[in-house]
Amino acid sequence: MNEAQSLIRLPNPPSVTAWSSTVGQKESEGPLGGCFDLTEPDSRFGQTTWEQAESELQRRTLNLLLSKAGIAAEDISCLFAGDLINQCTSSTYALRHLDIPYYGIFGACATFAEGMQLAAAMVSGMELPHCAVLTSSHFSSAERQFRFPLAYGGQRTPNAQWTCTAAGAVLLGPTGAPPYIRGILAGRIRDLGITDASNMGAAMAPAAADTIARYLSATRTRPADYDAILTGDLGLVGSRLLMQLMEQNGYDLRGIHRDCGVMMFDQNRQDTHAGGSGCGCSASIVCGYFLPRLQSGELHNVLYAATGALLSPMLCQQGESIPGICHAVHLSHESGKEQAS
Amino acid sequence: MNEAQSLIRLPNPPSVTAWSSTVGQKESEGPLGGCFDLTEPDSRFGQTTWEQAESELQRRTLNLLLSKAGIAAEDISCLFAGDLINQCTSSTYALRHLDIPYYGIFGACATFAEGMQLAAAMVSGMELPHCAVLTSSHFSSAERQFRFPLAYGGQRTPNAQWTCTAAGAVLLGPTGAPPYIRGILAGRIRDLGITDASNMGAAMAPAAADTIARYLSATRTRPADYDAILTGDLGLVGSRLLMQLMEQNGYDLRGIHRDCGVMMFDQNRQDTHAGGSGCGCSASIVCGYFLPRLQSGELHNVLYAATGALLSPMLCQQGESIPGICHAVHLSHESGKEQAS
Repeated sequence: MNEAQSLIRLPNPPSVTAWSSTVGQKESEGPLGGCFDLTEPDSRFGQTTWEQAESELQRRTLNLLLSKAGIAAEDISCLFAGDLINQCTSSTYALRHLDIPYYGIFGACATFAEGMQLAAAMVSGMELPHCAVLTSSHFSSAERQFRFPLAYGGQRTPNAQWTCTAAGAVLLGPTGAPPYIRGILAGRIRDLGITDASNMGAAMAPAAADTIARYLSATRTRPADYDAILTGDLGLVGSRLLMQLMEQNGYDLRGIHRDCGVMMFDQNRQDTHAGGSGCGCSASIVCGYFLPRLQSGELHNVLYAATGALLSPMLCQQGESIPGICHAVHLSHESGKEQAS
Repeated sequence: MNEAQSLIRLPNPPSVTAWSSTVGQKESEGPLGGCFDLTEPDSRFGQTTWEQAESELQRRTLNLLLSKAGIAAEDISCLFAGDLINQCTSSTYALRHLDIPYYGIFGACATFAEGMQLAAAMVSGMELPHCAVLTSSHFSSAERQFRFPLAYGGQRTPNAQWTCTAAGAVLLGPTGAPPYIRGILAGRIRDLGITDASNMGAAMAPAAADTIARYLSATRTRPADYDAILTGDLGLVGSRLLMQLMEQNGYDLRGIHRDCGVMMFDQNRQDTHAGGSGCGCSASIVCGYFLPRLQSGELHNVLYAATGALLSPMLCQQGESIPGICHAVHLSHESGKEQAS
């Protein structure tokens, strides 16, 4: 096996030149509540349906990104966007009246990292000046699509995760100032046979272990070289499994591993069981918490390994298992261009 | 408006080093029936459900691609794949047991061109040796998801299109031999308010006109510079609208425009109304018909402008209109590196 088959070297590590995040009420009441740019107490975002609400969530996040960056929609070279609602609905409807070249992407809750990888490649290799990434999730639109209608009032299982109402957006540009995207690694699908749509942490953990181990091996780095190895939303169940799987691979992640699903909510106070999830979960936390600290130099290296359960409601009904994927993005205060790898 | 905002210049135009196509029985009986690599008379492809059948269709097409290229799955640097079934289901399940770095993409019936653009960028800018694209559609899985259950026996409207059971795959590598990918342009979403899910040609035509006019303008070329300007699957209705829209923009496409949806079936004999559609429609025709002719030099320049109706069943039920998109890929017998643009 060619270990480096998908370690994509960025000839010119791009900078994250702007970022923005928006969350709903429940997310704003969690431990990271103060980190996000915008909070909206109305879960419908002033719209009629949950799907329209999620589109409005994306629009607001994108508008804030443009305003922070001081550019217009027409200045964006291309935008990678996606969400959980079939088929990339929230993104499509958020962008339909804007003159922005648009690539729809789907990596479930790993969509934000998938977009960061592709945008980084476009900036680094194609020398595009402004490439953006935008993803979202909404508790109510996701619950309806993937599990039960909200009005049904179904009881949640202990290992269930709570889809965050949240969105994040980044703008990437040519190398200039921190934070930088220093390395990217595309995920491979892993499927160990989990069929419980309420246990996505277990479905995603093998993919996370695969991608993190491959990244460490291909770059000849160790967990201690990072301030954090940050998974997307494995939650409490998936995080425990990841620690075990990595230990079997000879890696000790204790003290280094963090998980956005665990960070988003206070499990004792907020009744979210195994933690948060959704495309917007890690997107909003990377934008709200990590990028500012990577910019200031409080943090130097974060391996963001976003995880996605490539869940299809119909295939679950047909008894199929849930494939998982994990895309890795190395975020750094240093561009790494002058240093030995 | 910056006309060139999304004309992505490829520093090293990649070659299409291998391609493969598979179609179902009805497609094999159409005018292009002899062009495709594989034909499968069993619409279930030996599987139990339509969704599994579509995954098997993708697997066979990918296996043939690997065998034609003489490489193993592990040699692929990254694979862009997508389909119409939520959420990229056919692709995910086709690839879940393979060690291939995977990017899920969604551009509806424009997915194949979206993948070719991103794979071309990865080869050209990131210098990856083998990047692949794989898309499919299946009549039965698409009808069930987007319109009516097959068993319902609903009557089709005159402007309805027939989702093709078909798949196409390409492998891109560094510049070497024709055919080449010479230019790419990402589409912008256009939505002129069409709400009829049976009239996708009309929903997609404005996006096609936007992208084709932008490509011609940005490259300072005229329709006569191409052997064909090939839309994905506008069908008969959408193709007529495209001619009108382009005429309003000052472009005459008569004799140059071709449409994969129109080419796939014999409208007098096959009862497919406005023509074919689906991610697999233009993918299989580009791979089965155009790439061999671009390789031999029988054709020199084809502007492949794949069109997608970014249709969401739920949003249609909520009365929303259907946004369209069109991604353009300039396929050529010449790399264009030595020539003036």
